[in-house]
Amino acid sequence: MKRLSIVSCSCALLIAALPVLASDQDVIQYREAIMNTLNEQSAALGQMASGVVPDDSLVTDMNILALTASTALKAFQAKVPGGKAKPDVWANWADFSKRMNEFAQMTAAGAKVAKEQGKDAALVQLINYADACKGCHDMYRQNAKGED
Amino acid sequence: MKRLSIVSCSCALLIAALPVLASDQDVIQYREAIMNTLNEQSAALGQMASGVVPDDSLVTDMNILALTASTALKAFQAKVPGGKAKPDVWANWADFSKRMNEFAQMTAAGAKVAKEQGKDAALVQLINYADACKGCHDMYRQNAKGED
Repeated sequence: MKRLSIVSCSCALLIAALPVLASDQDVIQYREAIMNTLNEQSAALGQMASGVVPDDSLVTDMNILALTASTALKAFQAKVPGGKAKPDVWANWADFSKRMNEFAQMTAAGAKVAKEQGKDAALVQLINYADACKGCHDMYRQNAKGED
Repeated sequence: MKRLSIVSCSCALLIAALPVLASDQDVIQYREAIMNTLNEQSAALGQMASGVVPDDSLVTDMNILALTASTALKAFQAKVPGGKAKPDVWANWADFSKRMNEFAQMTAAGAKVAKEQGKDAALVQLINYADACKGCHDMYRQNAKGED
């Protein structure tokens, strides 16, 4: 099995020099990986904020969230509706990209605050994150499974 | 709906000052959030490595993976079997923690190489990551759904 994983990676290496021709499915999978990362890190931060798990990694997780947020808009730049993204993402691109850029700035600033000022200050930032996430999801994310 | 998210966060704030008493379910959910982050970022990196999506965020994603890896061992320190983790994680803690620490070191070094030397060098690092992931998952992760 070890060999298999190396072989599959080596094949990846061989085709990596080719021009990028992203299929629609690739584009959707990639942006879902980015948004799922935000979702998982938000869940971890939510648990730390509510005190149900230790908060040792709070600053690191806020950095992870900020770094991921910095890549998120680019993941939507190819105009490929599908997955959970509503077509409104591209119909209202100016608003969507403004929100995404603001979220990247907010989370970068929040991670800095958490590092410099500690947990209480970080929690205030996290409330702002949750509000920004919710506002954007309400506008631009399908809720096929009744999720928020 | 906005108000709801703020209220739930405010409640989180109120209980955040209490001592941490992680329930087993909280512990499992937290470590799954961390491991899912690694999984999502690995998927994104795999897509970039194989050239099916643009690689603009390659270095950032390698940093995200490295930061997440730096928090992963701590997520397993509470000895709570469940989720996909085999009991062997705690039965063979010396080996498990050695592998996790090595993975954190490997991904930190890999992110540095990617930043300094570019994509071709990064791809060599990613092969090593895949091998390390696979080796540890084969030993310590349940495959209830037939996943690797």
